[in-house]
Amino acid sequence: MSTDELLAQVRFGPDGLVAAVVQQHDTREVLMVAWMDEGALRETLTSRRGTYWSRSRQERWRKGDTSGHVQHVVRVSRDCDGDTLLVEVDQVGAACHTGTRTCFDDRVLLAASDEGAA
Amino acid sequence: MSTDELLAQVRFGPDGLVAAVVQQHDTREVLMVAWMDEGALRETLTSRRGTYWSRSRQERWRKGDTSGHVQHVVRVSRDCDGDTLLVEVDQVGAACHTGTRTCFDDRVLLAASDEGAA
Repeated sequence: MSTDELLAQVRFGPDGLVAAVVQQHDTREVLMVAWMDEGALRETLTSRRGTYWSRSRQERWRKGDTSGHVQHVVRVSRDCDGDTLLVEVDQVGAACHTGTRTCFDDRVLLAASDEGAA
Repeated sequence: MSTDELLAQVRFGPDGLVAAVVQQHDTREVLMVAWMDEGALRETLTSRRGTYWSRSRQERWRKGDTSGHVQHVVRVSRDCDGDTLLVEVDQVGAACHTGTRTCFDDRVLLAASDEGAA
């Protein structure tokens, strides 16, 4: 299937973006959630480097270009209605710009009942 | 920390919603992505049942109330900038309304290089 045919399976929102859940392919940690426009998805599919759209900066960015923390893309799937992507990667170093491995580390709102209060 | 204080850590978007990545707590499969308004998050935190906001129906819904496929919530975390949630659950049955275990099953856009073409 061509890249254009694959892109046609994705439903970008009114803002032209789709949410991408980024997961470490082997440990299955959820590393981060980012956004892709069509161009960022096309680059991700063709280059196998995690590439996103920054809503705050309004520009495309390729993860790791400044930090060195690149994402080698192993697999990309879409969800049942095509408006969310799952991007399985091999993450070099920290996924989060704060330096933690994932963006969700130590930011618990509700703890498991056997691990005490949040 | 009170539920109000926890909710204050979350940055809801202009539409009043935040994206929630739902993950099976033990296998770490990403099951689905859904949306929460403040009320849905409050219900999720207090009842430990996965509760969301339907953008298409414009109403709150509690996963499993019609399908039986309930989500028992184990842990909820927010990401570094508070605009995404990670909801770890114990999913009963299929997470996807199409009947597949996850919403991403068999919907591959880019396959791993060692598993052949998508």
